[in-house]
Amino acid sequence: MQIAVLLYDRFTALDAVGPYEILSRLPGVEVVFTAAEPGPIRSDMGSLALTADAALTEVTSPDLVLVPGGPGTADQLGNTAVLDWLRLVDRSTTWTTSVCSGSVVLAAAGLLTGRRATSHWICLDQLATMGATPTSERVVMDGKYATAAGVSAGIDLALTLAGRIAGDRAAQAVQLVVEYDPQPPYSAGSPATAPAGLVEELSASGLIVQSA
Amino acid sequence: MQIAVLLYDRFTALDAVGPYEILSRLPGVEVVFTAAEPGPIRSDMGSLALTADAALTEVTSPDLVLVPGGPGTADQLGNTAVLDWLRLVDRSTTWTTSVCSGSVVLAAAGLLTGRRATSHWICLDQLATMGATPTSERVVMDGKYATAAGVSAGIDLALTLAGRIAGDRAAQAVQLVVEYDPQPPYSAGSPATAPAGLVEELSASGLIVQSA
Repeated sequence: MQIAVLLYDRFTALDAVGPYEILSRLPGVEVVFTAAEPGPIRSDMGSLALTADAALTEVTSPDLVLVPGGPGTADQLGNTAVLDWLRLVDRSTTWTTSVCSGSVVLAAAGLLTGRRATSHWICLDQLATMGATPTSERVVMDGKYATAAGVSAGIDLALTLAGRIAGDRAAQAVQLVVEYDPQPPYSAGSPATAPAGLVEELSASGLIVQSA
Repeated sequence: MQIAVLLYDRFTALDAVGPYEILSRLPGVEVVFTAAEPGPIRSDMGSLALTADAALTEVTSPDLVLVPGGPGTADQLGNTAVLDWLRLVDRSTTWTTSVCSGSVVLAAAGLLTGRRATSHWICLDQLATMGATPTSERVVMDGKYATAAGVSAGIDLALTLAGRIAGDRAAQAVQLVVEYDPQPPYSAGSPATAPAGLVEELSASGLIVQSA
């Protein structure tokens, strides 16, 4: 199966690379990174570029499309080329997926209307204004539309999809290959568990981490 | 502080991008991806290239160096340019770090001799033959030498380092930004928890996931 990962300026790198690392290891999978123009695409922090190997016009019928999030999603909401491409490929996908604020781009393309979906915690309200029914679950499957919460949630999304695509055993094999046995040294990874005041602080700063 | 991430052909993308996504968000951090020659460097699965923005000769005194792993590490064990560069930068680093089989490259440079270190579970025996004392912990700190287990363990390593570098609150803020609240759909991420037979199967195949 062909998996297309959409890139655009100021995407969040882990949104794309987390799922890539899982899904690219499944038997029979070919992954293509695609953007409006092929070449290096800079991610949100500025110091990393991933190569888009194909233009959107070259990728017309992937079996799975994945839209990462990031600050650059704002510029995609009115990007007709990207939104038209998403509507086009969605006609023939088995899975249409997103990580983080990538779901806001899917919603802008009209693909999440009336569907349950998730996003980065800071974007859930925006998702509601665009016709989706937001939930704060980490991975949400509504038919073929599979969305993940912020950034690192793409790994959990991809493992879930791996099980559906290739079976539990293959998904477990990939999990063991990438040694995904998470042991975070803090438990601050969700608004429900973060220390007091941190959600408000990050919301006010636009997710920029401040010096102590 | 400057953080240098080493790239080389057939590295594993998440080994580099997981830590990058955490560490690049700390206040005052500049990350540079570096390789023998600048330009796109292809990762192990073939379908993703990350851009090295600087040649090794341009990066001479990073505060932190990170060596990702991957099948391409085998070619680095006799790569004098890379090993000499690691020995050079290690003289002035505050942290010398690795993810997955990246620790084998650090060991080949002589930097882990007599030190406790970890690696991908499939590489722990090799690490022992190269003078280090392997442990199967997920993140191992021995002085300034910080090593992580396979692939996804780099995220836990980076959060641990983030706390040491910028304090617990900043590390927790980054964890919340990247919504690192892992919920793997399977518990197959370590040899201790994987289904029966999977460790042997993957060891025999060189970590290639087979069809069911």
